Amino acid sequence: MTADLVITGCTALVHGEHGEIGFVENSGIVVRDGVIQSVTSARDVADVPSFERVDASGQLAMPGFINCHTHAPMVALRGIAEDLAVEEWFNDWIWPIESNLTDRVVELGALLACAEMIRGGVTSFADHYFSMDRVAAAVTESGLRANLGWAYFSSQGPEGRERSLDFALRLRGAAGGRITTSLAPHAPYTVDDTDLAATARLAREHGLPVHIHAAENKAQTDSSLERYGRTPVQVLQRAGLLDVDLLIAHGTGIREEDLAVLQEGGGRIAVATAPRGYLKFGWGTTPVRALRSIGIPVGLATDGAASNNTLDVWESMTLTALVQKYVEQDPTWLTARQALDHATRQSALAVGLGGKAGALAPGFRADLILVDLTGPHTQPVHDIAATLVHSARSSDVLTTLVDGRILMRDRRLLSLDVPAIVSELGSLLPDLIKRRGGQRIQDYNG
Amino acid sequence: MTADLVITGCTALVHGEHGEIGFVENSGIVVRDGVIQSVTSARDVADVPSFERVDASGQLAMPGFINCHTHAPMVALRGIAEDLAVEEWFNDWIWPIESNLTDRVVELGALLACAEMIRGGVTSFADHYFSMDRVAAAVTESGLRANLGWAYFSSQGPEGRERSLDFALRLRGAAGGRITTSLAPHAPYTVDDTDLAATARLAREHGLPVHIHAAENKAQTDSSLERYGRTPVQVLQRAGLLDVDLLIAHGTGIREEDLAVLQEGGGRIAVATAPRGYLKFGWGTTPVRALRSIGIPVGLATDGAASNNTLDVWESMTLTALVQKYVEQDPTWLTARQALDHATRQSALAVGLGGKAGALAPGFRADLILVDLTGPHTQPVHDIAATLVHSARSSDVLTTLVDGRILMRDRRLLSLDVPAIVSELGSLLPDLIKRRGGQRIQDYNG
Repeated sequence: MTADLVITGCTALVHGEHGEIGFVENSGIVVRDGVIQSVTSARDVADVPSFERVDASGQLAMPGFINCHTHAPMVALRGIAEDLAVEEWFNDWIWPIESNLTDRVVELGALLACAEMIRGGVTSFADHYFSMDRVAAAVTESGLRANLGWAYFSSQGPEGRERSLDFALRLRGAAGGRITTSLAPHAPYTVDDTDLAATARLAREHGLPVHIHAAENKAQTDSSLERYGRTPVQVLQRAGLLDVDLLIAHGTGIREEDLAVLQEGGGRIAVATAPRGYLKFGWGTTPVRALRSIGIPVGLATDGAASNNTLDVWESMTLTALVQKYVEQDPTWLTARQALDHATRQSALAVGLGGKAGALAPGFRADLILVDLTGPHTQPVHDIAATLVHSARSSDVLTTLVDGRILMRDRRLLSLDVPAIVSELGSLLPDLIKRRGGQRIQDYNG
Repeated sequence: MTADLVITGCTALVHGEHGEIGFVENSGIVVRDGVIQSVTSARDVADVPSFERVDASGQLAMPGFINCHTHAPMVALRGIAEDLAVEEWFNDWIWPIESNLTDRVVELGALLACAEMIRGGVTSFADHYFSMDRVAAAVTESGLRANLGWAYFSSQGPEGRERSLDFALRLRGAAGGRITTSLAPHAPYTVDDTDLAATARLAREHGLPVHIHAAENKAQTDSSLERYGRTPVQVLQRAGLLDVDLLIAHGTGIREEDLAVLQEGGGRIAVATAPRGYLKFGWGTTPVRALRSIGIPVGLATDGAASNNTLDVWESMTLTALVQKYVEQDPTWLTARQALDHATRQSALAVGLGGKAGALAPGFRADLILVDLTGPHTQPVHDIAATLVHSARSSDVLTTLVDGRILMRDRRLLSLDVPAIVSELGSLLPDLIKRRGGQRIQDYNG
């Protein structure tokens, strides 16, 4: 049978039987019907008939990055509110501005975000925002894979939750299966116990995962304890949310006593870590080592570009390695191979793609990237894992594939027209960034 | 008079009367005899006769980055000893391997490092290593500017210090003035008081600056107090080194009580910070805020690539901003503009180029870079300082000039042949990385 695509000559990042990261030189990868059919030697694929062949000599093939928590349309606000504490950032800037959001701004923002992510080697992302039909349209157009959830606050009344459910049911399986969906309550400090419990019931009833911000920082955990006598994780438990498939964004405020609570949960629980923003806000970071000790996958994320400034998951991988060494004061912890495990296997588990993405293996979706390792900043290569985590950059990604389709080839985007997107978005920005007396979509009081 | 080069249409990063960072759109920059003649409007330069014109529309012009502390040839060891504590890293890997160094490996490493730095927008670096004639040859060939110091330990006997002085006197002013030199004692824990005091005398006698590692981490400071009853900074003071022009690498172990000592110093004292490596070793970081409070410039650096994995000073700028916010738990500290001040004015002061580099201003050397801000990851631009520090990357540097000479144009290196360098270096690596029973150039016992 003729393959759709054969990639030859690359070094392939592969996972061993127990998930351990390895590298195979001079590999051949065969793709058919959007799926990886085999990862073998270049010699073995020399005679495989194929509609397309890519010579990837001198390049590394690895699973595409997965951005496990972002708000893609917020690239429209990249850099607008800098060097501020989180309260001021939300209340004086982001939430007032977001009261001006239009569907078109959301779609253009999402398109620009998709362009940035494809160029950065991201093949899939978990998004948590508003006007999510427009984000779904951008995902469809861009060719990326995504898990999408329409965010809601209890302050919106029951419509918020209903809209989130309606979206999740309508869009699941869209874009030829590239779109999956989640219910997306904003956070325990903006969604009350009744709504959280209702969300857990709906998740079970409809077989939907839940994506929520929780224990974003230590101050939130302290204030939750003060107000309710429970940590945010305990609030989630009480609502039944630990018994459904749950993706917790951030979790830098997760405490020692939360670990047993998380471990008792009956659902597939994961945490998304976006270390850049935590540094920027002067917070702590996600307790990756503690979560690892209880078997909770930690996926890599960037959060939205309004706080994080980039959607560069490669940078999140590097920063996770560096910051974990620093906070644990242990240079031997979070090795380069562990960082790559978070970027691949653990991130796939976090967004519900375990066994489907995050590895170059037969039967997995062909979501992969080719990385140039010939630049002076990546030479010589003594240890390819270290080269990837500590020397290479997202700008070294040459080629990005999702479902076997080439979305970027030799750094040229094939599905999106960046100048056109930037130009139209630019024309809408003056109206977007006006802050009108006191108007905001929500108050931050975490 | 005909100019050598006119750059038009860019946004220019400029410094105000009190050093404050500003941006001027649609600028024109005139370069003659290696010097910036004027920074004015594109209209004003439209009719200036010039041998060469660069249309830099949509690009940002800024002073080139200055790597204030590195060991360029160590790129040969990039990634060879990972996820280790500093003692093991030095004693089991780096110092044994460095006993195999040859002049040719040093030169090839330095050439590869120069290629990486030019591509990353670095125009000048301060180097502290061995076989420095070979590093000087690489600087000459690459077209970069550098301050070079031949490192020595007291364990080498008087020849170490003599070689460092001989090199500093022979090479100062080489490469058409692009090379300046320093005396380079390794550190207070490897150079004894007698040698440190002799270094201070030689520095005064010959008008040479001194470049030294000191108070690299808190453990070194503690052990210095235990052994000598003095902090490393007090050891430097006692040797007279605070009364000469002194560049201190790292200083993460500088204590509160050292501040007054530094302030009393009669020399031009500066500190180079390389924040990536500190995270990686699980150390603290340079006390930038405290040093600022006493007026000590803090320049940006990468250290060597064997520990830091890159020579990306742009990343050092970004990490300095992020890590400072984190360690001070203050998101309003080290703003994007402050980070740019460290990258430009303060770094120039640190390496003795104050008033000569680090600003786009008439009379300054034409060491500058042009940066592409049209990529999806840098759009839209609400605040150009934030875009530079938190969204842009060294890979966005399109063009690098030193002394008005274009060393990279549209990301193509003009002075160096990377594949040839990598290939020859690769052939020498097997002999380099052999570790022979117990042989090492020095013991780490900081």
